Amino acid sequence: MLRKLLLIAFLIVASLARAADPLPSWNDTAPKKAILAFVEKVTKEGSPDFVRPEDRIATFDNDGTLWCEQPLYVQGVFALDRVKELAPQHPEWKDKAPFKFILEGNIKAALEGGDHALLELIAATHSGMSVADFEKIVTDWLAVARHPRFKQPYTQCIYVPMVELATYLRANGFKTYIVSGGGVEFMRPWTEKAYGILPGQVVGSRGKTKYELRDTGPVLMKLPAVDFIDDGPGKPVGINDQIGRRPLMAFGNSDGDIQMLEWATVNKNPGFALFVHHTDAVREYAYDRDSHIGKLDKGLDEAPKRGWTVVSMKDDWKTIFPFISSEPEK
Amino acid sequence: MLRKLLLIAFLIVASLARAADPLPSWNDTAPKKAILAFVEKVTKEGSPDFVRPEDRIATFDNDGTLWCEQPLYVQGVFALDRVKELAPQHPEWKDKAPFKFILEGNIKAALEGGDHALLELIAATHSGMSVADFEKIVTDWLAVARHPRFKQPYTQCIYVPMVELATYLRANGFKTYIVSGGGVEFMRPWTEKAYGILPGQVVGSRGKTKYELRDTGPVLMKLPAVDFIDDGPGKPVGINDQIGRRPLMAFGNSDGDIQMLEWATVNKNPGFALFVHHTDAVREYAYDRDSHIGKLDKGLDEAPKRGWTVVSMKDDWKTIFPFISSEPEK
Repeated sequence: MLRKLLLIAFLIVASLARAADPLPSWNDTAPKKAILAFVEKVTKEGSPDFVRPEDRIATFDNDGTLWCEQPLYVQGVFALDRVKELAPQHPEWKDKAPFKFILEGNIKAALEGGDHALLELIAATHSGMSVADFEKIVTDWLAVARHPRFKQPYTQCIYVPMVELATYLRANGFKTYIVSGGGVEFMRPWTEKAYGILPGQVVGSRGKTKYELRDTGPVLMKLPAVDFIDDGPGKPVGINDQIGRRPLMAFGNSDGDIQMLEWATVNKNPGFALFVHHTDAVREYAYDRDSHIGKLDKGLDEAPKRGWTVVSMKDDWKTIFPFISSEPEK
Repeated sequence: MLRKLLLIAFLIVASLARAADPLPSWNDTAPKKAILAFVEKVTKEGSPDFVRPEDRIATFDNDGTLWCEQPLYVQGVFALDRVKELAPQHPEWKDKAPFKFILEGNIKAALEGGDHALLELIAATHSGMSVADFEKIVTDWLAVARHPRFKQPYTQCIYVPMVELATYLRANGFKTYIVSGGGVEFMRPWTEKAYGILPGQVVGSRGKTKYELRDTGPVLMKLPAVDFIDDGPGKPVGINDQIGRRPLMAFGNSDGDIQMLEWATVNKNPGFALFVHHTDAVREYAYDRDSHIGKLDKGLDEAPKRGWTVVSMKDDWKTIFPFISSEPEK
């Protein structure tokens, strides 16, 4: 009986401690302290750094910042799967790069075609249907696709500490946005459920669309033409187009996020920026300066000069995924 | 004493009645009833037409729907004023159309150059500075510019019933957006103060911008190139790019809004659309099918077929502006 009471008391205390800690998946190391201190100073009425809720804008990169981007960007996996799915309707693909290489399983050869191959791949898999139909294609694919290493749906391969952070910021009056190089139509179908981020708060790369009024109602058709690339110096442009203000906090993980982090912080006070550094080969992946995906090189040099926080996933995060991952990559 | 008490009682009753009426500037005619009935059915839990707050999107055209667009679009007046302001730095304009005509006060001749002249005018007055500097130019101009007929700042030439409507919708969990053919950077500096609509909820036409990191900090430079025209079939595209969902309610006043109203309503239930019809030559302006500005022709034919509400400013609005206007145009 006493043991049972002690156990109950312990559970209550633990749960209270958890309730008091808005970032329970973060270790009590410098990054967590920096985040909490910044949020306190900008939300405390009367503080010299107080920012009214309307101007509390937080922008998050997606690939590698909110969800796993290894061993290949999820949208890349999707495009490859779509080629296989659509191949029966395109007999000509058997003889045409990059499609023939993809169908032969030779991804390396497919990608050797460079930007041209990539644009052909995107056009073939991301256009020719309405925005609504594309949303269904993405949703259906995500329901069955699994991460090759973690054997989980991709929407489970999300970083719990970052989702906690976004939730914590919203609870403090922030608006949380995704600002990603990924396609906006690829993200919108699932970001609300995964991160609590609504479609209108997703900024991303875009194809052109065209409005048509059909007998069945109005549609927006996805055209095989790039409209906007939301990466590198494109990120402040995308932020300005869709949000219209410089962010108060910005979170990224690669050199493609440098300009967004500058836009949030350089010659701007208050402002906060953070890089997620992939340092955990056991629970996730370890990569930075030499990686083809999510390369973080210049950013690692810039961070200390700019006063940007760098999170080591290995040292600063108690948990990474909503599932247990403790098998190193083979 | 009794009279005084009666007066106080009257004022209390009037103020309570006003508090109970969310749209006091609207007459109790069909448009107001249609709005109230629609909002009730989509916000009432358990109603078959209930829409959760996250999906309550209301889109408002700006020129002629939220503020006065006669005798010339406000942004047009701004561009003409800028040409005069910048002329000393551009001696070559004395001999170059459309600038020479503007400087001679011959606006008709200036506009005869068509789209090319218009793009030259926009490029000369809306690019070559940072987004932040342009915001200051617009703000400074609005502080001194006055409407030629009403002698009021343009940000006072706004429609009280529509501002009430936007406020009422936000109080009912809606997100209110502007979706305008006007320039997004021209609107963002003042829409929060005038309408309660934040920069991130302003969708509009855009010029291209370019990110640069300077010694003084990062800037977004406005380039002399059109990026997107948010008019006609462009409105559903702009809505999709920035909001990512079809609107639940849409409000416009001209044929350029038809596609937005279709996007909110056609083969979609629930959905609500409304045209503001400019019928009041005494308090504002009367124009529709033959107007060069804010032409409402096809829209007037479409409205009854589509079940769209048409507001007659003369008959359905008690008040138009925040100031008293009762002198007909001379």
